[in-house]
Amino acid sequence: MSAPNLDMMFQALADPSRRAMVERLSRGPASVSQLAEPLAMSLPAVVQHLQVLEASGLVATQKIGRVRSCSLHAPAMCIAEQWINDRRTEWQRRLDRLGDYLDATNDDLEPETNR
Amino acid sequence: MSAPNLDMMFQALADPSRRAMVERLSRGPASVSQLAEPLAMSLPAVVQHLQVLEASGLVATQKIGRVRSCSLHAPAMCIAEQWINDRRTEWQRRLDRLGDYLDATNDDLEPETNR
Repeated sequence: MSAPNLDMMFQALADPSRRAMVERLSRGPASVSQLAEPLAMSLPAVVQHLQVLEASGLVATQKIGRVRSCSLHAPAMCIAEQWINDRRTEWQRRLDRLGDYLDATNDDLEPETNR
Repeated sequence: MSAPNLDMMFQALADPSRRAMVERLSRGPASVSQLAEPLAMSLPAVVQHLQVLEASGLVATQKIGRVRSCSLHAPAMCIAEQWINDRRTEWQRRLDRLGDYLDATNDDLEPETNR
């Protein structure tokens, strides 16, 4: 399995069929045919999507006998989630600081308006 | 600004230059030239990336006089983050249930091994 790579992870999640596969795998490992079942596409198309997910590090596959078992690789999901979270919380922190500043400015102004 | 769309949001985040722009905007609004400054690319290329970010709903832009001001649209960031989080926590829940099951099976077996 490749090392997690943000470009490839977000690219992998940018497709609704691949997100449906991730959603299915979040409920437990599945074979390629089980993954294909609810999707309206050929098995080779499913395999191609699976390869994108595997290359991104979000999904791991393992061949057991003649069946390829697919499972979610949660640490990679964590990395993608954390990247968005870090940006969003930085933005929130900045907004809170701005709020504090505006409150302080307001407090400074209030006595003057009461004079 | 377009309504948030997971395909477009993840697609937008799949590029390192666009992630650098989101990272810059998480520290506060910026003009297009300010966004372009640290990036080794032409202004038209920056504008093109900005259009992808804007179409995805992750970034909002507003023309004030002759300057286009760009800012992060945190609710869209939330939606992308939440999608990954929901899948990851579902996977974790399943793993915890499996752990509980294995613990219970182990407890059932232990008296037998002590016989």
